[in-house]
Amino acid sequence: MTAATVRIIAVGDELLEGRTSDTNSTRMQRALGVYAVQVRDIAVVADRAEDIAAALDRTGAGDIVLVCGGLGATRDDLTREAIAAWAGVPLVYREDVAAQLAERRRLRGLPPLAAGDKQAAVPAGCEPIANPVGSAPGLIGVLRDRRVAVMPGVPAELEALLPGIVEGLRRLGALAEPRPTRLWRTAQMTEAAVARLCEPVRARHPGLRWSWWIGEWGVDVRIGAEPRDRAALDAAAADVDAALGDTVYARERSELPLVVQDLMLARRSTLAVAESCTGGLLAAAITGQAGSSGYYLGGVVSYADAAKIELLGVDPGELGRHGAVCGPVAEQMARGARARLGADWALATTGIAGPGGGSQEKPVGTTWIALAGPDGARSGGFRFAGDRDRNRRLAVAAALDVLRRELTGDRVFDAERLSWRISPR
Amino acid sequence: MTAATVRIIAVGDELLEGRTSDTNSTRMQRALGVYAVQVRDIAVVADRAEDIAAALDRTGAGDIVLVCGGLGATRDDLTREAIAAWAGVPLVYREDVAAQLAERRRLRGLPPLAAGDKQAAVPAGCEPIANPVGSAPGLIGVLRDRRVAVMPGVPAELEALLPGIVEGLRRLGALAEPRPTRLWRTAQMTEAAVARLCEPVRARHPGLRWSWWIGEWGVDVRIGAEPRDRAALDAAAADVDAALGDTVYARERSELPLVVQDLMLARRSTLAVAESCTGGLLAAAITGQAGSSGYYLGGVVSYADAAKIELLGVDPGELGRHGAVCGPVAEQMARGARARLGADWALATTGIAGPGGGSQEKPVGTTWIALAGPDGARSGGFRFAGDRDRNRRLAVAAALDVLRRELTGDRVFDAERLSWRISPR
Repeated sequence: MTAATVRIIAVGDELLEGRTSDTNSTRMQRALGVYAVQVRDIAVVADRAEDIAAALDRTGAGDIVLVCGGLGATRDDLTREAIAAWAGVPLVYREDVAAQLAERRRLRGLPPLAAGDKQAAVPAGCEPIANPVGSAPGLIGVLRDRRVAVMPGVPAELEALLPGIVEGLRRLGALAEPRPTRLWRTAQMTEAAVARLCEPVRARHPGLRWSWWIGEWGVDVRIGAEPRDRAALDAAAADVDAALGDTVYARERSELPLVVQDLMLARRSTLAVAESCTGGLLAAAITGQAGSSGYYLGGVVSYADAAKIELLGVDPGELGRHGAVCGPVAEQMARGARARLGADWALATTGIAGPGGGSQEKPVGTTWIALAGPDGARSGGFRFAGDRDRNRRLAVAAALDVLRRELTGDRVFDAERLSWRISPR
Repeated sequence: MTAATVRIIAVGDELLEGRTSDTNSTRMQRALGVYAVQVRDIAVVADRAEDIAAALDRTGAGDIVLVCGGLGATRDDLTREAIAAWAGVPLVYREDVAAQLAERRRLRGLPPLAAGDKQAAVPAGCEPIANPVGSAPGLIGVLRDRRVAVMPGVPAELEALLPGIVEGLRRLGALAEPRPTRLWRTAQMTEAAVARLCEPVRARHPGLRWSWWIGEWGVDVRIGAEPRDRAALDAAAADVDAALGDTVYARERSELPLVVQDLMLARRSTLAVAESCTGGLLAAAITGQAGSSGYYLGGVVSYADAAKIELLGVDPGELGRHGAVCGPVAEQMARGARARLGADWALATTGIAGPGGGSQEKPVGTTWIALAGPDGARSGGFRFAGDRDRNRRLAVAAALDVLRRELTGDRVFDAERLSWRISPR
């Protein structure tokens, strides 16, 4: 089966004025990711009828055309009118939609609109899709042989409408059965290392669609197959499981801090954190998850050496011997945080995020991460190869993953496999 | 003077597969924001020569065409080749560029490439622009009557190349004098509040170009004028200064944590932080700036009440009286952090970020921020109206701004003006 061609048209002056990046196209791509479709291109155009029409002209008969933006209630918003004019169909004022919009205003204590709501106008041949979180409904229909879906540009509204849009496209016959897919989310691995591990699997199981990308916590791998190739997908998935092994923290869309949180809550264990190079970013990642107060007690950001000594009880002599960036100091930080906060576990980070502070022996990116628990403390050295921001983020992901590995396996600081690990001291 | 038309072409399979949003177009738009240009549209296309050519075909003679992505060293990357083929010019292998690339490899300890580096090939009629942070040089030249600039798609490389690209476009005569502009960056204000303050100024000075957008730390306002309207711009700017007053933390592209850092370093003062609801995000914002170790000593993330008591010396009785989210607890947290870390100043945050934990009396978003200094501690209450992530970010920006206001003025907790302030207790 050939994949259907998708063309995206993102409408909005704000996308052309340095104010806002078009992130909606990525949301639409992800919503369609499990279907056999190929996104051919994205056109980002201004709130101008002729530019919207020109972009529609460039689509082809049979294409799935996704349009977002310009469905608001103000005069700037003219996507609805532009699409109807391009298709040569009238706008039909729908009493049922108008009644929904009026009810929505009433519930919010707003007066009814005198002239009616232009958001109740629907191009003939399209059906409205109710908007769960905003006023402008989505639109879906066949116009000039294209399967056209139109959504508002407010990201939260678009996100909430997407399931209905996908459902509508399926009703139009634009989308076949979802393509069977598998997802693996890995941590502490470079894209190249993941590709290397997957390469033999790809060679053994041809005809599957592989994709990978770098997410917030590491590299994600996805394989998709045509419905008839389900058995091949299952076989390949078993091989990927074996190849990636314990570098995988999730097999679904879950975030690493949430995976750690679920593990800790299930064990009723508590966590404390001591941060130097990550400077609060590790705690921020943990507490970014609702429910983290169920296991996270708190932590210390010990940026100055005095703070490491005073708040965590790090031995000044140890700091003098090797400086703050070494395994023994990381372990003392973790032990200190664990003891002071009375936690079951504690993580510590100390490193050189950059841009300054590097040396021949300890270049920028050198980082030690320690984990203290009921049986004492252990540490591992890492050398991240990014700029300040990326080194800090890599250290956060590695620290969370160290705890995950401790809770699920035994090779916590696997120096053979993990990409940025360095040998002791 | 008419504004030159800019067309952006963003190239990359990853932009069409749900992996990456096109943020580079926004970077390019911002870099050109001070010039009299109008970005007409953005075409996002795959790494396919015919799609790149089709997008180039749609540009017009005289346009400024900005292309990003597909300049890497692998076979997927074919933007360079596609542009040369579209323009009907040969690729010229530049020995000077090859020598720079070889030297770059040598400095990184990589062996020279056997077949030479295809990144040294330049379409005839284009000049290379040195890449300060990566290998692929930028390209600039006149091709088929378009002023064409080509940049790599790696955001950090594109960002580093943009000044050179803008300079190159100016040499080509594509950009006139920068349009006089003024920028104000405000904190602790909603977009509506900023617009309301600016409205009389807009009415008084017609003919200027206003734009505003929401940044990481608050709302930014920009006014631009044609060069002949410089006097009107100056007059309007004076009125905006008066209207926005001390809500402005910068009049240039500077970040709030950097503004605070510069103020603290100039005073040789030190800072400690105690965080509850922001959970490390405030420390992370501070330490995200290189050089922050010059004034930031460290801090405590006291998520659990016990951590507030043990690590910060908060009075358990106070916690019992009003709970953790109140002015007195925020002040005790700040005093505790200041004393334990021996800092001149300390900030503290305590609040209900959501989604759970809210009550009638203290709904989600209720937050107290305290500042302790040589003369004691003060606090102010806020009610932010976002989700968990946004409430945390708003609290971080407000806390940094509280310190900025203390160091530069006297209305630190201005309850009349600032958008999210609530009355005492």
